[in-house]
Amino acid sequence: MGAEGETFEIIDQQKLPFAFEMVTVRTTGETCYAIREMQVRGAGCIGVVAAHGMFLAALECFREGLEGEAFDVALAGKGALLCATRPTAVNLSWAVMRQLQWISTGESAIEKVALARSGAQAIAEEDVESCRRIGQHGLPLIEEIFQKKGGISAVNVLTHCNAGWLAFVDHGSATAPIYAAHDAGIPVHVWVDETRPRNQGARLTAWELGQHGVPHTVIVDNAGGHLMQHGKVDLVLVGTDRTTYTGDVANKIGTYLKALAARDNQIPFYVALPSSTFDWETQDGISGITIEERDGREVSRISGEAGEMPDGTSSGEVVVNLVAKGSPVANYAFDVTPARLITGLITERGICAASETGIRGLFPEGGGASAWPAK
Amino acid sequence: MGAEGETFEIIDQQKLPFAFEMVTVRTTGETCYAIREMQVRGAGCIGVVAAHGMFLAALECFREGLEGEAFDVALAGKGALLCATRPTAVNLSWAVMRQLQWISTGESAIEKVALARSGAQAIAEEDVESCRRIGQHGLPLIEEIFQKKGGISAVNVLTHCNAGWLAFVDHGSATAPIYAAHDAGIPVHVWVDETRPRNQGARLTAWELGQHGVPHTVIVDNAGGHLMQHGKVDLVLVGTDRTTYTGDVANKIGTYLKALAARDNQIPFYVALPSSTFDWETQDGISGITIEERDGREVSRISGEAGEMPDGTSSGEVVVNLVAKGSPVANYAFDVTPARLITGLITERGICAASETGIRGLFPEGGGASAWPAK
Repeated sequence: MGAEGETFEIIDQQKLPFAFEMVTVRTTGETCYAIREMQVRGAGCIGVVAAHGMFLAALECFREGLEGEAFDVALAGKGALLCATRPTAVNLSWAVMRQLQWISTGESAIEKVALARSGAQAIAEEDVESCRRIGQHGLPLIEEIFQKKGGISAVNVLTHCNAGWLAFVDHGSATAPIYAAHDAGIPVHVWVDETRPRNQGARLTAWELGQHGVPHTVIVDNAGGHLMQHGKVDLVLVGTDRTTYTGDVANKIGTYLKALAARDNQIPFYVALPSSTFDWETQDGISGITIEERDGREVSRISGEAGEMPDGTSSGEVVVNLVAKGSPVANYAFDVTPARLITGLITERGICAASETGIRGLFPEGGGASAWPAK
Repeated sequence: MGAEGETFEIIDQQKLPFAFEMVTVRTTGETCYAIREMQVRGAGCIGVVAAHGMFLAALECFREGLEGEAFDVALAGKGALLCATRPTAVNLSWAVMRQLQWISTGESAIEKVALARSGAQAIAEEDVESCRRIGQHGLPLIEEIFQKKGGISAVNVLTHCNAGWLAFVDHGSATAPIYAAHDAGIPVHVWVDETRPRNQGARLTAWELGQHGVPHTVIVDNAGGHLMQHGKVDLVLVGTDRTTYTGDVANKIGTYLKALAARDNQIPFYVALPSSTFDWETQDGISGITIEERDGREVSRISGEAGEMPDGTSSGEVVVNLVAKGSPVANYAFDVTPARLITGLITERGICAASETGIRGLFPEGGGASAWPAK
């Protein structure tokens, strides 16, 4: 994602890996669209895009001639629109709230716009730095497994969905330790869950890993348990869209099933996250986190590259229907993995237990404003 | 499936639900093709088709002028070809071995052909009767849950893959109790796992249930755990392709993950099977059952109904590519659910524990020939 003057550019992740297209975002409305329609997705990326959306929102308030409280009220309204686009991702509201608080310290409208811009930049830079540190803190986990296995054969990591650099600004969360290990010369092989219904694994994670030269194999979401039963997975590493202060993890639907299989086969299950993904308000993830329900057509139809038309030509990407006509479909976007199934959380400050004690040990300030940049 | 003179007809399950086409099977080779390419699939159905394939094989031996031992040797060779088409499904080798033994009792070639025909018919009839009884034995389970829930709201059953009448000759195994309950006026709603990679749930089970008027909802394979955490599943009911005499169950890849989630949420997990699906030789399912690995293109590509071409026309069923170019793919067809996760087995003789004691209690004759038809 790049910011250019009074607009910013995003990679259209809906088009990957079959086309690489940039989209210019010009308004708060376009920002909402990009997040809701998942042109951008992934915990960190949504936060950074929302922060930039708040800059566009501030610009709009400025252009409407608003000042003082009227500016702040209008800005809060636009922030609420952004927050409503996806209910589960906590980085979204975190970024909007942080921007609102930061921007409110400006006295004139022009100063507020400048703060909105610097706030968005700060969030993007912190995201990069957090992910880099997650990579450094996670690297020893992979190194240790490599040594335990005799220092020859590759470490097999299973991941679900995409918590790679596409989901953030750089490095990614779950992929950061993988990239760090690969770059350090430790052989790593990644089992990539295709991640139905939107196939972020098969489309995005596989593409990312391929670009970086990391060996990997795409599997259906059903396969992980079988691989674990047969010693083919050494470590499970996933991201998260929201983590309660007690360590419950909301992540892409199906993560919970993989955590159960990891536990059943004594395989370490780690969740990587920048602290912006913590939800400091919610105690019980299963009862407390709203799980987004999306359009059933994301399940009943799938988009892929048509390379096998009857006449042998390709007509680019097409949508096909997968489900028997008349059959209803439900589409839950996330599930919650209880803390008891999680071996540890890999954060920008180190690894901690998935528990309130563990989390507050690394982040004693909790969700307090002290974590935010000084003006 | 219908037998007509010297050929037999099958429903091409690869075409469902977007087209209903019958295929005439004329030779042993065509039978092998139909099983390997999954025009027919499902435990019972594979057994019945293989039994009819042995009839075609006997006809071929007869036409080649073979008699006596030469006939039996040639027939065994054709049986071996049939058995090799799919390594995990036990009904396949069960039906072939039973036919070989049955046919070997004939003295002349013409008598062997007649035995092959009557043996195939017997296997088909037993399959129907076994599934009917499975329905009757499973029905009280659903009825009991219905009463426990207060006798008003529907019983929510989750199923994986297709163990419906398409997978057998009639009724199905896992669906038999569902159809029996529905027909008895007990409200049932079925969560249908789409069942990647070949989508037997979304394509076949949803279609079957729709044809029968049973309320159902298609979900991705990732969703079951979330539904169970939120009390939306009362019972899990699946079929099996091979069950060890100790109660380990090989079924469509992903079944194990659902069993783990059922256990974690105290939801009963039942497996329905005719006794022809028991493997009386294998003790430990995880180490002892060969898991079929199929072509990776079943994962990387998907076939669906193209209804949304750019010009608005439909071009029938097309294949689209889902995976980033250059990314390797693995395709394991089954996994093994350990007996400890299974609440019970629903068989044609009643329900038993998934244990050697439970199974031998209902089937004291084990795999002995006494279960086979008298000449």
